[in-house]
Amino acid sequence: MKIRPLHDRVIVKRVEAERTTASGIVIPDSAGEKPDQGEVVAVGNGKIQDNGEVRPMAVKAGDRVLFGKYAGQGVKVDGEELLVMREEDIMGVIEA
Amino acid sequence: MKIRPLHDRVIVKRVEAERTTASGIVIPDSAGEKPDQGEVVAVGNGKIQDNGEVRPMAVKAGDRVLFGKYAGQGVKVDGEELLVMREEDIMGVIEA
Amino acid sequence: MKIRPLHDRVIVKRVEAERTTASGIVIPDSAGEKPDQGEVVAVGNGKIQDNGEVRPMAVKAGDRVLFGKYAGQGVKVDGEELLVMREEDIMGVIEA
Amino acid sequence: MKIRPLHDRVIVKRVEAERTTASGIVIPDSAGEKPDQGEVVAVGNGKIQDNGEVRPMAVKAGDRVLFGKYAGQGVKVDGEELLVMREEDIMGVIEA
Amino acid sequence: MKIRPLHDRVIVKRVEAERTTASGIVIPDSAGEKPDQGEVVAVGNGKIQDNGEVRPMAVKAGDRVLFGKYAGQGVKVDGEELLVMREEDIMGVIEA
Amino acid sequence: MKIRPLHDRVIVKRVEAERTTASGIVIPDSAGEKPDQGEVVAVGNGKIQDNGEVRPMAVKAGDRVLFGKYAGQGVKVDGEELLVMREEDIMGVIEA
Amino acid sequence: MKIRPLHDRVIVKRVEAERTTASGIVIPDSAGEKPDQGEVVAVGNGKIQDNGEVRPMAVKAGDRVLFGKYAGQGVKVDGEELLVMREEDIMGVIEA
Repeated sequence: MKIRPLHDRVIVKRVEAERTTASGIVIPDSAGEKPDQGEVVAVGNGKIQDNGEVRPMAVKAGDRVLFGKYAGQGVKVDGEELLVMREEDIMGVIEA
Repeated sequence: MKIRPLHDRVIVKRVEAERTTASGIVIPDSAGEKPDQGEVVAVGNGKIQDNGEVRPMAVKAGDRVLFGKYAGQGVKVDGEELLVMREEDIMGVIEA
Repeated sequence: MKIRPLHDRVIVKRVEAERTTASGIVIPDSAGEKPDQGEVVAVGNGKIQDNGEVRPMAVKAGDRVLFGKYAGQGVKVDGEELLVMREEDIMGVIEA
Repeated sequence: MKIRPLHDRVIVKRVEAERTTASGIVIPDSAGEKPDQGEVVAVGNGKIQDNGEVRPMAVKAGDRVLFGKYAGQGVKVDGEELLVMREEDIMGVIEA
Repeated sequence: MKIRPLHDRVIVKRVEAERTTASGIVIPDSAGEKPDQGEVVAVGNGKIQDNGEVRPMAVKAGDRVLFGKYAGQGVKVDGEELLVMREEDIMGVIEA
Repeated sequence: MKIRPLHDRVIVKRVEAERTTASGIVIPDSAGEKPDQGEVVAVGNGKIQDNGEVRPMAVKAGDRVLFGKYAGQGVKVDGEELLVMREEDIMGVIEA
Repeated sequence: MKIRPLHDRVIVKRVEAERTTASGIVIPDSAGEKPDQGEVVAVGNGKIQDNGEVRPMAVKAGDRVLFGKYAGQGVKVDGEELLVMREEDIMGVIEA
């Protein structure tokens, strides 16, 4: 099953960042807050602007992105938790 | 009886997704939350843009769509529960 | 007495849909919720758009329309309860 | 004393509609709710649109109009209670 | 000391309207509500519109104007209480 | 240290107006409310309008301005309390 | 790891300003409020305007900027606390 996002929507899969406390103990993710990073799974065609033209997306599938803790809406697709958000909600692209 | 949606409105019929708990027991839908998926039944002519032009719809009857849990407004037509929402409320199209 | 709606306003007369419980008993309307259907009685000239042009109405007198439970404002004209709403509030046209 | 309304403002004098209960007793207005009808006393030059042009008013002095129960702002001019509202607040013109 | 209002702002001096009760007793102003009338003291150059052009003001110094009870912001200039409001807040011009 | 405001922002230094009670006693400022006047210290290049053009500022450094009691955001620069506000928040220029 | 901000977003690193009380005692930062200054680490390509054009950024990496106490959203990158905000949230550039 695949989702084709509409317009300026982006489907993102959260990425579990490693978490280490100050004292060096790694905290399993269920005990910490969910990370704000993810990998773009699919993007729409772009935002329809006021003048009716479509603006191409600034992110693409495979990009690692940063987003706000409460961005997007969770959906479960084939047992996998995904987030659907707008390009607007993405703050930046993480470059290795 | 048939409904012809106005402008950018979309009529959607919820689709009951199968639900299985972690332990493998299938939960009948009345006990779980309503799914966020549906099939498009009818669409309007398109959104009237600020410049007065009509933008054709990005979804069509028969499309399987994903939408937010609280999207749309329920209407009962010929005993059948339908949802009327805006194209804006549809997050993506599910492709098999 | 007749009302000529301004701009994109629509005057609608609620239509009492028949109501039957699961067990087959017809409920007189005063005991149930008010229906969300109505017949268009009169329409304005159309919505004045941002560019100053008037967009003709998408519904006309006689149309049977679907609208949200809380759409419009009630007015009593010659002892008859009517609703004044905007075209925006009409979700679709019911075709027999 | 006369008021010249600015732009898209309209000055309206409420009209006391006759009120009769189901049993046929006429209720003097002080005991009932204020009616939602009025007569236009004066109108502005028209609404200044986004493109800077002025759109002429759709109502004129002498028109009998219908408006929402909470529309406008009351002003007392020469001992007479008037309402100042925007054309936007007028739902329609009552034609005899 | 003089204030030159910016853009579409208007400086208004409240005018104390005479107040008489139904029984004919004149109430000194401190016992009644503040009146909604005033005299325009100074006006700005006009509102900067979306297209960048300046729209000249519809009121001028010396005009007697009507405004909402809570319009504007009070300022004390040389011991005199004035109101600074936007042209938008002025409902109409009172003509003698 | 100097601040260069961005776009339509204005940096203002509050000016302590002399305060005298009705009985003629001068109140030191710490006992009264802060005044709503100030001197413009620096201005941005101007507001970027919807059409992309920059509108030059209507105030300049050295202007004595009037602003709302809660306008702007306080910043401390080199031990001096300043306010950063938008041109929009300035009601007028005080001319001696 | 590097973040490339999207559109009009700016990544800022807070700068700890020295803090001295009136009596001359320097307060370590953990005891005081966080400062409102920072250094720009990275900027996006610019804001997409209503007409579809991109407006270049008014700040650049290395600029020392002033921002509101609650501006931006904190992100932790490689153990370093950063803020992601919009150019809109930056009040001015501090020049030495």
